[in-house]
Amino acid sequence: MRVSVAGIGSTRFGRHEGATPQALAIAAARDAILDSGIDRGEIGALYLGNFVSGVLTGQEVLAGLVADGLNVQGIPATKVEGACASGGIAFRHAVMAVASGQVRVALAVGVECMTGADTTRVTGALNCAMDNTTDGAAGLTYPGLFGLVWQAHAARHGTGRDDVSAVVVKNKRNGLRNPLASMGATLTVDEVSAARPIADPIRLFDCCGISDGAAAVVVTAADRLSGHPGPRIDILAAAQSSGPARIAGLRDLLSFPATVRAARAAYAQAGLGPGDIDLVELHDCFSVAEIVDSEDLGLVPPGAGGGWAREGRTDIGGTIPINASGGLLAKGHPVGATGLGQIHEVVRQLRGVHPNPVPGAAIGMAHNLGGTGIACTVTILGRADA
Amino acid sequence: MRVSVAGIGSTRFGRHEGATPQALAIAAARDAILDSGIDRGEIGALYLGNFVSGVLTGQEVLAGLVADGLNVQGIPATKVEGACASGGIAFRHAVMAVASGQVRVALAVGVECMTGADTTRVTGALNCAMDNTTDGAAGLTYPGLFGLVWQAHAARHGTGRDDVSAVVVKNKRNGLRNPLASMGATLTVDEVSAARPIADPIRLFDCCGISDGAAAVVVTAADRLSGHPGPRIDILAAAQSSGPARIAGLRDLLSFPATVRAARAAYAQAGLGPGDIDLVELHDCFSVAEIVDSEDLGLVPPGAGGGWAREGRTDIGGTIPINASGGLLAKGHPVGATGLGQIHEVVRQLRGVHPNPVPGAAIGMAHNLGGTGIACTVTILGRADA
Repeated sequence: MRVSVAGIGSTRFGRHEGATPQALAIAAARDAILDSGIDRGEIGALYLGNFVSGVLTGQEVLAGLVADGLNVQGIPATKVEGACASGGIAFRHAVMAVASGQVRVALAVGVECMTGADTTRVTGALNCAMDNTTDGAAGLTYPGLFGLVWQAHAARHGTGRDDVSAVVVKNKRNGLRNPLASMGATLTVDEVSAARPIADPIRLFDCCGISDGAAAVVVTAADRLSGHPGPRIDILAAAQSSGPARIAGLRDLLSFPATVRAARAAYAQAGLGPGDIDLVELHDCFSVAEIVDSEDLGLVPPGAGGGWAREGRTDIGGTIPINASGGLLAKGHPVGATGLGQIHEVVRQLRGVHPNPVPGAAIGMAHNLGGTGIACTVTILGRADA
Repeated sequence: MRVSVAGIGSTRFGRHEGATPQALAIAAARDAILDSGIDRGEIGALYLGNFVSGVLTGQEVLAGLVADGLNVQGIPATKVEGACASGGIAFRHAVMAVASGQVRVALAVGVECMTGADTTRVTGALNCAMDNTTDGAAGLTYPGLFGLVWQAHAARHGTGRDDVSAVVVKNKRNGLRNPLASMGATLTVDEVSAARPIADPIRLFDCCGISDGAAAVVVTAADRLSGHPGPRIDILAAAQSSGPARIAGLRDLLSFPATVRAARAAYAQAGLGPGDIDLVELHDCFSVAEIVDSEDLGLVPPGAGGGWAREGRTDIGGTIPINASGGLLAKGHPVGATGLGQIHEVVRQLRGVHPNPVPGAAIGMAHNLGGTGIACTVTILGRADA
């Protein structure tokens, strides 16, 4: 059965002082339901993506809390977790619930509240995504991991500091035009390259910011949407994979097998190839991650990610626009919300209502990566009228 | 598509000093895969039920860790959470993955490691299942909640201390014969009624014990199992519901709407009624919970739960054998594992290999309840040859 996006909603990603995860999730979900024009009573299943609400806020059972708060109590309401890929996993499960004929309408919500805790606590919480019997026990943190990845990319492909800085300049600039992003900025390559060191060679602006936020998507059978205004956006693929749990399991620091597998599955589901993708929102948790992800997705030739960014080929109007929203670098990364936030951005592009539009975009991709590449989702969306 | 149980595995529930959640989960999953006789390479999806591993052990992404440890890395591996119902939710999703034709074989695993933390920390972690903006903020804990439920049952139905103690005596006695249970005991009603007070009127033996443990089930299409030895066990129903997030949302302290809804859905799916159920493993997190649950499931008339226990009508050989395994009271409650542990017990009963057999059992039920009734699963299993 063809499944389509019926409605989308999102809070601004950034700081929401004093907000609870359930309040942000309910706000985003209400917007998505309103946007769908579907009565909330038709929602048959709810999936909520969240990573560390238990650790940071002492609150679990968020799926049930949100179902209750939306007054759709009674339906199956399930929290799913796959570290930073939790939001993409929630979306895929909502799609499957409709595609299998189990329900007519499903709601996916993603949320995280992180700014209420100090950076040390947040770093500790994020490390719950590592195998703490191995990588974590060695003292590694995520900036450290991506510092190692960067060093490998530089050693193998000669990627320079300024190549990577070009990714940051682009995403921060894109974010400036996106009201959902609160960390957009006008920066020069020199400013990015000279920022405060974090984990060599990663510097401050190479890192996505600790954030609060929520995003939501309502999905339904395509035929349910006949007569709705505007272009219908179909789900052409929703793939999920797992990968090595620890760095020792990666054969190559420059490729995440989970991304490669999910992309391969998504292209096969959609009957498309990398050349068909008009834009991508991908998981730039660190600047260098955008480079590696774009190569793993087949959108940029291996080793060319840094050069393409420097040459503007990944900007709007370039060969493959990457993170026209500003990405995680400019939007922030409220972990459980990120995957649904990406889909929200792609849908706005395909509907032609994005504040930072990719002209003529008909097919878009979202890529959500968790932990040390332990979980990944790749989603392909397309305009039904294209 | 008809879905069947292909294999089951479980660790003992109790104390596993120094064990990690992933190690216990992998042990149970390996046993289930071995029991199934199916090559692990055929597993197409993994669902892992876990509640508070992040909070208590600082480890998330357990689904990916277990997939990697089992060498089935690459497949979609998803942690699901619905407080104490997490295990039942994992099972339902594995069943749906097969029923929808998405995969041929799916693995559900549930796990929790709790004994490494002191009781205060565990109580705090368990409170992540409450709405902490309301019930939790009022200072309530789970023993306190079920103390209130008990007081209501006593006030409405005249249920006495010794009626409730009869539940404990039965379950502790049943557990003595179950090698997977480590808290079985020979107790008298007087001993139970005189134990150390916890949260009035709940006393020590009315509470399930803090535990470590894991359980796993492999499911597949029924036709995949032709030629396998022993009776085939089919999934006749796998229902999931949500309920009020807080006590103020319960119209009646003596009924959890999530149980009533999931039971109604499960009976409808199976085309059966309460009178068809030969045995049930239900969520006796506290002694009085068994009474309320048995009434909500329609297995015991409203208000009669205590009396039936005292009269032996819920014992093996009685009208409806409840928790022949010893239940949570004698097995302990490693939260994320409990729902799959219940299904493990029911499958052993229907296969005729349970150490505490219900003679002639052909149809069994498992009931898994989370939080303040915020999430529930009800599963009905049946012998294909019955």
